[in-house]
Amino acid sequence: MRFAGMSTWENVTIVGVGLIGGSIGLAIQARGLAKNVIGVGRRASSLERARRCGTVTQTSLEIADAVAEADLVLVCTPVAHVAETVVAVARHCRRQALITDAGSTKQGIVDDVKRLWPGGPAQFVGSHPLAGSEKAGPEHASANLLDGRTVIVTADPGQPESTIEATTQFWQRIGAVVRIMSPEEHDRALASVSHLPHIVASALAACTPTEYLDLVATGWLDTTRIAAGEVPLWSQILEANREHVIRALDGYREQIQQFQSALESNRRDDWEEYLTSGKERRDSLGN
Amino acid sequence: MRFAGMSTWENVTIVGVGLIGGSIGLAIQARGLAKNVIGVGRRASSLERARRCGTVTQTSLEIADAVAEADLVLVCTPVAHVAETVVAVARHCRRQALITDAGSTKQGIVDDVKRLWPGGPAQFVGSHPLAGSEKAGPEHASANLLDGRTVIVTADPGQPESTIEATTQFWQRIGAVVRIMSPEEHDRALASVSHLPHIVASALAACTPTEYLDLVATGWLDTTRIAAGEVPLWSQILEANREHVIRALDGYREQIQQFQSALESNRRDDWEEYLTSGKERRDSLGN
Repeated sequence: MRFAGMSTWENVTIVGVGLIGGSIGLAIQARGLAKNVIGVGRRASSLERARRCGTVTQTSLEIADAVAEADLVLVCTPVAHVAETVVAVARHCRRQALITDAGSTKQGIVDDVKRLWPGGPAQFVGSHPLAGSEKAGPEHASANLLDGRTVIVTADPGQPESTIEATTQFWQRIGAVVRIMSPEEHDRALASVSHLPHIVASALAACTPTEYLDLVATGWLDTTRIAAGEVPLWSQILEANREHVIRALDGYREQIQQFQSALESNRRDDWEEYLTSGKERRDSLGN
Repeated sequence: MRFAGMSTWENVTIVGVGLIGGSIGLAIQARGLAKNVIGVGRRASSLERARRCGTVTQTSLEIADAVAEADLVLVCTPVAHVAETVVAVARHCRRQALITDAGSTKQGIVDDVKRLWPGGPAQFVGSHPLAGSEKAGPEHASANLLDGRTVIVTADPGQPESTIEATTQFWQRIGAVVRIMSPEEHDRALASVSHLPHIVASALAACTPTEYLDLVATGWLDTTRIAAGEVPLWSQILEANREHVIRALDGYREQIQQFQSALESNRRDDWEEYLTSGKERRDSLGN
């Protein structure tokens, strides 16, 4: 099987035309990588918005039609619908079409795809672009959203090397940096760097007394920014990665507890050590 | 006693010429509010940096000299040195000079000033500009740092109304919005909106496994940004406001604990309720 990794494509289909799908559509067009970028959605109104924002060149409400001639299909639906959508795409596209996704968790998607399609379609490779925004919808899509950002491509044992390679090349061609890991390692890492921060930010916003909200400054605003993310989207992500998130929360609560007990027993050296450790880790990453 | 609230001043002295002192110095000059802006520091090198950045027009290593002719003195030292500095200033300045500060906690400063100067000098009013940055030093000072920002002016029972008024007018004249509260209420509020977020951000940064640091995206970066703040500065703030911070931590840990137990017992409705509550509070404040 040969995937069209290095040429330009005739047809790229994007299922789910929100922020990520829209940004990928814009990036493909900006780099002249495909003749047609076909957006698929479940509601005419979403497709109309996508068309108005120019994120895709054509739209369709029917997956079967939209993927029949596709060289590459990107499944950018909310995480709870990725697996069923991948399988629906695989049933209707050509065998040499490559299918990848943009879901924020990976083990559950890979498992569900295999459950729905025993063994899994060989042409599917899981991906996760590590970029996003607390803003949703194609109106906030940008051709540069993935520029220089990391995309994790997940490799399962027994997956054809050529599909991993073609997926890697696709993301690189729209400007991203690719890192390959197993679905399980992806989920453990993302629990720490993405899902835990969401809970931390949300809990901080939720516990701030309303009568003090007009006193917040940039510190509070930065620390709680991602709490504005879409609730259904984040709820699905947390559900899909529950086990790893719970373990990440254990580690975080331990850290907070140590900090509080240093304050309670007035051990200044200890809390300075904790502050220093947080600062060193943060400083290593720039703004 | 009459304070020079509405005229321009001959001499304004700023003790402590870092980010906040420097920004106030620039704002005063940008608005033509004083003829001389005298910066006081403990090291010639800091004064040299302040002069190079243009945050003050003159410098001095001696508080006594620098405040002798001042109409207004701003104490912008680290929080642990504010009280002793206020008293040193009060001993050497004229009785009609107004003294205020920019310390991040208030009850401890007000108490310490009264302990060092029984009853407290009537010309001192505590202030706290709610603006800052994880960046330190006069190089990051900006004439607009306080533009439209809130400054809390603290009113103690028995304090002359004229000093509160003159202090309020000063901050308003450099572009800030003033809110008056008691030192105790200030400290309780700031524990929630400033000191707790710092611990939350620091603990999140500290508990992120180093092997995943290259996977962080904007969410983690925003949520941990203030963890880059100066450790000695934050350590002093936490020490000065320990009691209120511990109570704020109690409320936050309860919130995190509830979130985790909803995940553990797979109560999706509950965690969606928590996410919604965080989102609503965050959405009410814009970017």
